[in-house]
This record gives sequence, C-alpha cells and structure tokens, in this order.
Amino acid sequence: MNCHRSLSAVRRLHTIHARKLLYCDYGEPSQVVKLVEEKLSSPQSNQIVLEMLGAPINPADINTVQGVYPIKPPLPSVPGNEGVGRVLSVGSDVKNISVGDTVVPLDVGLGTWRTHGIFDASKWMKVSSKLGLAEAATLLTNPPTAYRMLKDFVSLKPGDVVIQNGANSACGQYVIQLCNAWNLTSVNVVRDRPNICDLKDSLMKLGASHVLTEEELRSTSLFKSGGLKAPKLALNCVGGQSGMEILRKLQSRGVHVTYGGMSRQPVTAPTSALIFKDVQLRGFWMSRWSKENATNQERQNMYQEIIELMLSGAVKAPAHKLLPFKDYEIPLKKTLDMKGFTGQKFIFTFGENV
Amino acid sequence: MNCHRSLSAVRRLHTIHARKLLYCDYGEPSQVVKLVEEKLSSPQSNQIVLEMLGAPINPADINTVQGVYPIKPPLPSVPGNEGVGRVLSVGSDVKNISVGDTVVPLDVGLGTWRTHGIFDASKWMKVSSKLGLAEAATLLTNPPTAYRMLKDFVSLKPGDVVIQNGANSACGQYVIQLCNAWNLTSVNVVRDRPNICDLKDSLMKLGASHVLTEEELRSTSLFKSGGLKAPKLALNCVGGQSGMEILRKLQSRGVHVTYGGMSRQPVTAPTSALIFKDVQLRGFWMSRWSKENATNQERQNMYQEIIELMLSGAVKAPAHKLLPFKDYEIPLKKTLDMKGFTGQKFIFTFGENV
Repeated sequence: MNCHRSLSAVRRLHTIHARKLLYCDYGEPSQVVKLVEEKLSSPQSNQIVLEMLGAPINPADINTVQGVYPIKPPLPSVPGNEGVGRVLSVGSDVKNISVGDTVVPLDVGLGTWRTHGIFDASKWMKVSSKLGLAEAATLLTNPPTAYRMLKDFVSLKPGDVVIQNGANSACGQYVIQLCNAWNLTSVNVVRDRPNICDLKDSLMKLGASHVLTEEELRSTSLFKSGGLKAPKLALNCVGGQSGMEILRKLQSRGVHVTYGGMSRQPVTAPTSALIFKDVQLRGFWMSRWSKENATNQERQNMYQEIIELMLSGAVKAPAHKLLPFKDYEIPLKKTLDMKGFTGQKFIFTFGENV
Repeated sequence: MNCHRSLSAVRRLHTIHARKLLYCDYGEPSQVVKLVEEKLSSPQSNQIVLEMLGAPINPADINTVQGVYPIKPPLPSVPGNEGVGRVLSVGSDVKNISVGDTVVPLDVGLGTWRTHGIFDASKWMKVSSKLGLAEAATLLTNPPTAYRMLKDFVSLKPGDVVIQNGANSACGQYVIQLCNAWNLTSVNVVRDRPNICDLKDSLMKLGASHVLTEEELRSTSLFKSGGLKAPKLALNCVGGQSGMEILRKLQSRGVHVTYGGMSRQPVTAPTSALIFKDVQLRGFWMSRWSKENATNQERQNMYQEIIELMLSGAVKAPAHKLLPFKDYEIPLKKTLDMKGFTGQKFIFTFGENV
C-alpha cells in the first residue's frame, strides 16, 4: 500500500513543473528576483516533495535579498523563510512525515517562495491540518519570538507586568495574546494615528490589558502608587525615544529586550537606569536562538504549545493579505512601503493558476 | 594590661574635641556644609574611636549633599564615604581591631569628614599600616569597582581584550593596572587635549596596552584582521557617542558596562548590535554590590587581593591633592568644577592644625 502510493507519487512527480522565485545577485527585490521553472526529480531517501500552500513576505526576506541582512545565503537563492506545505512524496528513510501531511519549516533559509520543492525532511515539522493558513505559514518566526522573549529574560508569574512598544506589529500581537493566555498584564504602546480608537479596540479584543499612545505613556498615572506594578520586562521593536520611554517604566533589575528598530533610531538608555536601577538592555534574534540555543526537541515542544494555543483559539495570526503567487511582483514592491508597523503581511497562495 | 590601656584611652577621650562637617539640609555643599565641634564620649562595647588620617572628596559625596544621589541619608548628616583612620580606643566586645590599627570603612555613609569619630566596629576593616595614605583613603570604591567590573560580567582569561573610555579617570586607572596585573590587554580611550602625549605616556607607564583618543578609535586598525581580538568587555563612564564607539568594537556576546556618565549624554547602542551580535548593556554600582551581592567575607577577600597588589607596587592610587581639613571650603567648591575626568581627587588630611 505504501509502496503503491509512493510509486504513484513518483509517477506524478514526473509531471510536476515547479515554479520558483530566484535571485542571482543581491539587490532590490523587484529588480533581482525572477520567476523560473524547474522540473522536480524524485526525492532522495531523506527528502520530501512538497507543494506549498502559503508563504509570507517578511521584512527579513526583503533585507536578505537586498544583501543587508546578517544571513547571506549562497547565490543563486530562492527567497522566503516561512511557509506551509503539503507533502506529495517522501523518501524511503523519512520517518514521522507522510504523504498528505501539512508541514512547516523548522529552520530559515529553505526558500519557500515556490510552488513545489524537494527538501531535507529533517528541516520540516508536521503540524495539524486544522491550523489556519496564516497561522501555519507565519509560525516559524513571530510567535516563537514573542514566546521566547516572554520566557527567556525574566521569570514572569501571573500578574506580572510586561510593557511593549510597536504593540500592533505582528510580533506585538502575539505578545498580547500570550500574555493574555498566561495571565500576564500587558501594557501596549502604539503610535498615535487617525484611527487610534479602532486600533486600541482591536488590541483590547486580542487581550491587551492596556493600550496607550506614545504621548499617553509619558503622562500616564497607570504606574502611580496603588496602580500597576512596574514592568519586569520591556519589549522594544522601535528604538529611539520610544524604546527609552518603555525602559523608564521598568522596575529595578528589569530587562529591556530589543528585537526590532522600526524608528531607525538607536536604542537609548538613561545612564542612571543602568547604574542605579540595574536595568539590562538585551537583544533577541529568533534565528540565533534556533541555531545556538535550542535542541530540535525544545523547538518542537515550543511550537507544539503555540499550535495548541492557536487550535484552541487563544492565539491567532494578525490579519494578512492573501495573494496568488503569480502576482508576486506586487507585494515585492509594496512590502518595502509598509515599514512593518501594521502587523499585516502578504502571504503568497499557490494553486491551479500560479 | 588591656584594662589599663582601655582606661587610659577613655581618659584621653575626655579631652578629645572632635570637629566634623555637617549638613542639615540638602543643597550646594559650599552653602549647606558647616564645621561643628563635638566632645566624644566613651565607645560602647561594639564601638571604636577613630582619629581620621585622610578622607577624599568624591563626586558621589557632593551629589549626596546636593540631594541628587540615589542614597539619601537622614539629616543632619556628616558627609564623606571613604577614608582611613587610626584606632584610639575599642569597646569591650570588639574583636579583630585593636588600638593603633589602621582601618578603612567597609560600607558607605559612615561620615568620614571629621577629625575623630565613634563608629560601629563591624563597619571597619583593619588594613596594613604600610598602605599609602591615598591608597587607603580611596580604597572603598574605585579599586573594587574596577575589580568587580573585570570579574563579574564576562569570563576573562589572559590575552583577552578589555576596552574602556574615560581611561584616565580614577577608576579607569585601576582598570589599567588590574588588566596589567592579570595579563589582560587593555585598550584605553581618552578625550583629545593639548597635553595628550603626556597623558598617553602616563597611562602607558601605568600598564596600559594601548591608548587612543576618541578620534583615533574611530579609524583605528588595531582590531583589523591579524591585530587584536575584539574586546569581550567594554567599560563606559562617559556615555553618548563615546559609549557607543566602544560598544561597536565588542565581539559577539560582548558586554558593555556603564558605571558613569561624564558626558551627561544617555547610553546609546545600535539596534543591530543588540539583535544580531547579542551584545548586552549592563550597569555597575559599587554600593549595590556591597549591599545586595556580597558577604562580608567576599568583600574582605576582594579588598585583601587589592591591598596585596597595592603593597607589591602593582597597583597605586591616581595622583591626589592633599589638603588640611581646616581648608575644607576650597575643595567643596573646586570639586564641582573638576568634572571627574582627571582621576585626581582632593583628600582631607587631619593633624594638629585642623
């Protein structure tokens, strides 16, 4: 039965004409990224053949193509780090993954912007097929970034306070939802904007404890005596003045973790906070955690916990914009303008008309 | 014999008219600090009577009097945190300290700007009488600050590189000497000035491996391939651009420790150093270490190691300016102008004509 399925899959493979994006030089994505075709061969014993179901466009993907990201893949390279696929065929030595499974990458750099591909099976993890497309396609980076930042820098117990800026970013929305699921109080700072009430409402509905604009934070009485405890943890994806304001709210020995720099201003801290309050400034990069800190088992346990929260409805992906893969040129240009502050991403979808 | 000595000391005490500085309100030292007289009573069982030999004026002493330091002593208060004294008399329960011993404080806030005083014996530590006056009088803060910063943040082994700014500050000079004693390579950054060659010479003579001006640091090829390893540790007492420049030189996972802010600019770090290089920004405050981290035994062991380095000639205090206590008004005004960048301090001396 297995043998029969495998043979039929191999037979089908001979008819698969995959399409993928490819770049041979670093540069502006809209200029250097091209669509190419390839015929897929049969998988080797440790490989799987996937058809991709969804793959998002992240700022890091764009920066990688531009050659300005710290990870520089050897060229030519297929862009795309996150995604979700369905297994069409498996090599003879592959365990734990079967034909028909839904899988997500366990590592960056696999090149997910393609209709089909042949991959090392050990780089992919089977997930529930009930997971939403956006949740699965963007599972690799933002949810675990939020998860690890809440777990790895200070010991948080229910009732403890976490403050973050850029709270409406994709990662910020996961921070809100994880804090809510773990009974942590989240103080969420966003930039003022014309539709600020709608934004506040949407973050409160996600489970935010408090949402403040940058201006409101400066004069808030939220932390005055009798109010909230001072935060133990500040999560910064903005930098500059905003990063400093959330640092000022930290309690003694609090930790300030930078994972982004949307304002393009450096991270700044009052000297007295470092010396007299013993506040620490740290940074977090999911790729490093995966490479240096984690065993495969640790990674799978974490993803499993996140997936369960997603399946229970406690955690969901930010609103995303689905787009057929054939229209790949549109988001390549648009992402550059989005500046990452909306939490919304483009996700390529793949199907008959790609 | 002990009894006889004690009685004679008590008898002598009745003739001691101590003079001390005192302030009853926070404010500018030259205005709120007054000289007052007091007759010393006999020591209680756990007390010692000291005649002070020397006591320095530190920026933190001035800031404490001004009421802008994080430690606010109850008023009225005698200023002065560091000093060295000779024991005139001991209470009946005092162990380890005898009449004639040279002692230094183990804690801040004892009020050392006085000719004589009665103190809790447990707050003082006996030291060799061979220790120089400046070394003893300034032992409490700068040498252990340098010592702890080199010990507590990263694991340094011979040949490892430490970079610091404000290298000619009092603490910076101890960093140079301890690095030299422990076979660490020190890269020392100072501000350019008319007599820069003299300053460089003096720091090289102290044991500095390299001395660069801020400008030279920016274009140095010292860390180019084949040159020095990138520093594991950066010590910052300046802040602003200077603090950022030494941070830029750190190796991955390096630690940047702030212990001063001479430029009055906040501490600034490139976002990428935090995220991609996993550099940490920390702060150090000797008073907190003493209060929160150290047992008395740990403290004494550390001071013993430092004292041995001083007695061997490997470590010495920066040049200080000795001044009779009766002229206390001069340094109270002058210290405010010194801005702490020269490493030179005023040290009160006490004697017949105070």
